Amino acid sequence: MLSKNKAKFIKSLHNKKAREESGFFTVEGAKSVLEILGSRFEVTDIVCTEPFRNENRERLEEKNIETVVVSPEELESVSSFKTANSVLAVARMIPNRAPEKLEGLTLALDNVRDPGNFGTLLRVADWFGVYTVIASEGTVELYNPKVLQASMGSFCRVQVHYADLERFFENEKSPVYAADTKGENVHDFPFEKNCILLLGNESHGLSAALRPCIKRTVSVPAYGGAESLNVSTAAAILCDNYRRMRG
Amino acid sequence: MLSKNKAKFIKSLHNKKAREESGFFTVEGAKSVLEILGSRFEVTDIVCTEPFRNENRERLEEKNIETVVVSPEELESVSSFKTANSVLAVARMIPNRAPEKLEGLTLALDNVRDPGNFGTLLRVADWFGVYTVIASEGTVELYNPKVLQASMGSFCRVQVHYADLERFFENEKSPVYAADTKGENVHDFPFEKNCILLLGNESHGLSAALRPCIKRTVSVPAYGGAESLNVSTAAAILCDNYRRMRG
Repeated sequence: MLSKNKAKFIKSLHNKKAREESGFFTVEGAKSVLEILGSRFEVTDIVCTEPFRNENRERLEEKNIETVVVSPEELESVSSFKTANSVLAVARMIPNRAPEKLEGLTLALDNVRDPGNFGTLLRVADWFGVYTVIASEGTVELYNPKVLQASMGSFCRVQVHYADLERFFENEKSPVYAADTKGENVHDFPFEKNCILLLGNESHGLSAALRPCIKRTVSVPAYGGAESLNVSTAAAILCDNYRRMRG
Repeated sequence: MLSKNKAKFIKSLHNKKAREESGFFTVEGAKSVLEILGSRFEVTDIVCTEPFRNENRERLEEKNIETVVVSPEELESVSSFKTANSVLAVARMIPNRAPEKLEGLTLALDNVRDPGNFGTLLRVADWFGVYTVIASEGTVELYNPKVLQASMGSFCRVQVHYADLERFFENEKSPVYAADTKGENVHDFPFEKNCILLLGNESHGLSAALRPCIKRTVSVPAYGGAESLNVSTAAAILCDNYRRMRG
């Protein structure tokens, strides 16, 4: 049984402002919760159904985290999603810290607004072993429940740093390559080993202020009638081409 | 002003069964509606707001389609989506017909269930100039409003044929390559010019019954910790590799 205060606290975390003020966020779903339990995040509470507790008893006991077993209805009442899941975890945010040194491929996101796109981008980054993502301050919040859900647990491995991209790029030596439908063909693109791949907003593309920071633009050749690719799809193709060339 | 009967008919089309019985479906949003007006689909009704009518007056008059101008609230009342758009069209379905001959790259989908994934797959197919998609009978319905929305108008160009995949493959000469996380590396994959790329269900992968039809399996090499890529993301990377090799 969940105390009224705890239920109220968890529900408050659906709200961005409350997350920022408290420094906590929620994660839902068996896959994401099992991943966060093995990650650098500190989990403070687990609220789960009996089947989940029974299946993961050892894991939960070894972690020594306060675990409350609830009915599916009770879980649904504190969930951010319409459909109930088997488990919800409360975890502490990790402070926004600049990466020490960029190595290999880094992604930079300029005002990606859609939580599903951002989450999928993290999953793509994780697939290609890209562990640093620099997000402009206008990018959707990492701890938005829809971002975490779409990332399928990848938010546990990929580090997201929010920054003013213009300033960040000024202090960086690695070249910035921007995805752009009018860019050079990615099939012949001379990726440097250390580089930053910049992706723009879903509707408005790249901010004009960032243009001077861009060394080259790169695009996925089109053969048909679609006007564009989704930002996470484009990112995945560019990452695959980088890996093909640079390993 | 929309007649009560027309409003009732449009709303009935939110429902799959009513779509199948009537042979009509709805399309929403300016981009999709403008695309369908220039496509092989027959549009029978347009319901739009005044600004949309004013911006597209010539286009609408030349097409000679019954156009009803409504308030945003009235449009919302017949929409399948929570957020109102500026326009909705009613169009006639195209009968399910087998393609005459497969040329170049063809996609085959084995029980893709998520409307957003299916729509995004159509957008990917359209980007790469893949104009035939064979969908198993368990694949989500093409005329589902969420499929059409996610396809961003690409459903107008890509032809989807529903079929029993096992039988379909038996009668086809082109080799079937299945996307599989344990397949051959796509970077060295010997794509034939005419071939079928088979993609499995989001959770369960490929149906066992299809295994004997598969000539080779292909995968996108992974470098990180994510367990999988989204089906449309994987398809996009495979299509890009096909185009890189085969043009």
